[in-house]
Amino acid sequence: MQNTFSFHVLSQDSSTTARCGRITTSHSEIDTPVFMPVGTQGTVKSLTPDELIDAGCKIILGNTYHLYLRPGEELIRHFGGLHKFANWPKAFLTDSGGYQVFSLAALRKIHEHGVRFQSHIDGSYHEFTPESVVQTQRILGSDIMMVLDECPPYPIDKSYVAESIELTRSWAQSCFGSWKNSEPLYGHDQALFGIVQGGVHEDLRRRSCEQLMSIEFSGYAIGGLSVGEPKTAMFEMTAVCTELLPKDKPRYLMGVGKPDDLVEAVSLGVDMFDCVIPTRNGRKGQVFTWNGPMNVTNLIFRDDPRPIDETCGCYACRTFSRGYIRHLFQAQELLAMRLGSLHNIFFYQKLMSVMREHIHAGDFAAWKKSFLSTYQSTSEMNNPGREQ
Amino acid sequence: MQNTFSFHVLSQDSSTTARCGRITTSHSEIDTPVFMPVGTQGTVKSLTPDELIDAGCKIILGNTYHLYLRPGEELIRHFGGLHKFANWPKAFLTDSGGYQVFSLAALRKIHEHGVRFQSHIDGSYHEFTPESVVQTQRILGSDIMMVLDECPPYPIDKSYVAESIELTRSWAQSCFGSWKNSEPLYGHDQALFGIVQGGVHEDLRRRSCEQLMSIEFSGYAIGGLSVGEPKTAMFEMTAVCTELLPKDKPRYLMGVGKPDDLVEAVSLGVDMFDCVIPTRNGRKGQVFTWNGPMNVTNLIFRDDPRPIDETCGCYACRTFSRGYIRHLFQAQELLAMRLGSLHNIFFYQKLMSVMREHIHAGDFAAWKKSFLSTYQSTSEMNNPGREQ
Repeated sequence: MQNTFSFHVLSQDSSTTARCGRITTSHSEIDTPVFMPVGTQGTVKSLTPDELIDAGCKIILGNTYHLYLRPGEELIRHFGGLHKFANWPKAFLTDSGGYQVFSLAALRKIHEHGVRFQSHIDGSYHEFTPESVVQTQRILGSDIMMVLDECPPYPIDKSYVAESIELTRSWAQSCFGSWKNSEPLYGHDQALFGIVQGGVHEDLRRRSCEQLMSIEFSGYAIGGLSVGEPKTAMFEMTAVCTELLPKDKPRYLMGVGKPDDLVEAVSLGVDMFDCVIPTRNGRKGQVFTWNGPMNVTNLIFRDDPRPIDETCGCYACRTFSRGYIRHLFQAQELLAMRLGSLHNIFFYQKLMSVMREHIHAGDFAAWKKSFLSTYQSTSEMNNPGREQ
Repeated sequence: MQNTFSFHVLSQDSSTTARCGRITTSHSEIDTPVFMPVGTQGTVKSLTPDELIDAGCKIILGNTYHLYLRPGEELIRHFGGLHKFANWPKAFLTDSGGYQVFSLAALRKIHEHGVRFQSHIDGSYHEFTPESVVQTQRILGSDIMMVLDECPPYPIDKSYVAESIELTRSWAQSCFGSWKNSEPLYGHDQALFGIVQGGVHEDLRRRSCEQLMSIEFSGYAIGGLSVGEPKTAMFEMTAVCTELLPKDKPRYLMGVGKPDDLVEAVSLGVDMFDCVIPTRNGRKGQVFTWNGPMNVTNLIFRDDPRPIDETCGCYACRTFSRGYIRHLFQAQELLAMRLGSLHNIFFYQKLMSVMREHIHAGDFAAWKKSFLSTYQSTSEMNNPGREQ
């Protein structure tokens, strides 16, 4: 089995830690920094693979916890893996399922060798171990697999976090062993990323980074952030990690974020992101623009003939007015949720592409300042629909 | 104002009353028999205009009752009519709103000059009159407008129906006057169709046909069917009407139906149909095929790698397996509703197109027999997901 997976840094910004790179997988070449839409149940909610490809997506995320419970790994194996099941020709990253066990499942019980939990769907009992989640991800056939980790809630005692990173380290080692001792099922390479934890504690983050870096993963994720901590803490911890993590491996900030968060994190050297915000918020009528977020359900857009964003090339903006899209949301039409999701995924992909251009061009810091100034402007006149 | 609207019979089947024709409107040339998807609130649920056009749709229906209440006629006038508001470049037919007043609104009170009702959305009071519904449809700017009629429920005393057709006749006359005495608002021609009532009573149907035919409408609809009466009565009444109605005007059977109903009604000389079945049932996982309806949510399709219909060219069938689509329905994913709707609309358009071909070719009767035999087969083996 040849290892297809690779990562190369293509350019490094001179005044920030931002960088451009390229991840190669068996299913796509992915320019970084990259945003990965979340396809929880093997589908990015409301959108088709064609629409995602049109928006420029080269990689999407699948949730192992959800897919393991429904439709179940045996069915996905029957269909020849998640790519074939969902007819997604580009890359998949799958998480380990750990995060959902901690956030969704009932009666979870963590022990040294894994975590026992009850399904949020039917209450049935299940267990994830470091070895089992790697084998489940082998069955899913994702291009990038993630280790099982413990993601402590926020806030929580530092002593808990200190113990927790030891468990995360031990599980990471076991996942690594399970990965090295197993083969892909469908003939394409599968990378494995480690996950750094450590809460909002710099010393624990450093320790966790060092522990994970002692294992030769394909890339490193920064986990346990965007779970309720202040934004300043999130960026501080991100900076601590990106400074320590290997320069020649991709760095993935899990579960982040809003457009301005992505820009900040890119400037700190993050290469990969995933978040439900563009789709979840899009389904509720919050759409993102270069002038900030806009609630298209706002009464002020009732008779507005302009598209959501006059500079946007997505189908929603090429086709419909704010007034019509607002009507669709008021009438609770399914098309509203499609258009909100489509526009936001398109905007996120465009945002990443613009960031890559400016990193390559060497003016990322100036662009970032200008972008944030426009995006975070709270001018009522410029952006009457701004989220409060 | 030039009258663009026209209808020409292109071929007449020799052994049935089926016929092919062409309706010309300012927005499209429509080959008949035609099925019109229902876009209740200015959108065919879950689908985009592009998808409808790809499926071959040349005309869709908008519901005056719904659009009048939300977003309201003034907003649609502000946007320059329903075509521009919804960005639908082909033809629109709008109903008069009467049917929804009788089926949805609260506290409706019919009087000689119209009907007073409370909105099902917010309980506000409104009144529809023959004149007001024509003027509302002028504002919507539909290519084909419908008269206000009373659609009695089923079953009901014959004496009620006998009185009711007199009201329908009087309202039809008033609508006609309001149409003749007003102009389109957006520079394109708007036709007006009359609606025949008369319940399941042959003599009342005949009388209603004669009453309506004495007014020079652009076309004639058969209303008040598919409201709970036996299928045999529906087809008997349809036959009574199509025999009487003018041969040179389109005949529209309102609210019908399932694929086999369409085939029967076409053989009786019906030219136009609308129904929520393809979209409503599609959203719940009932998909239509040449072998009959199929509930794709059925357990038997869990591991089925075949498309819904191997002969179908729609995006759902070109892209996804029954197993994956079933998973999407089980997981209550929005994409499931899109794919079910898309396939069904595609199937309905294809069915109409195949019927037109066989009418032109002169072998419609033989094709109909063969189609119904396959479609209505209840063989468990051929069609395990058949609706019970």
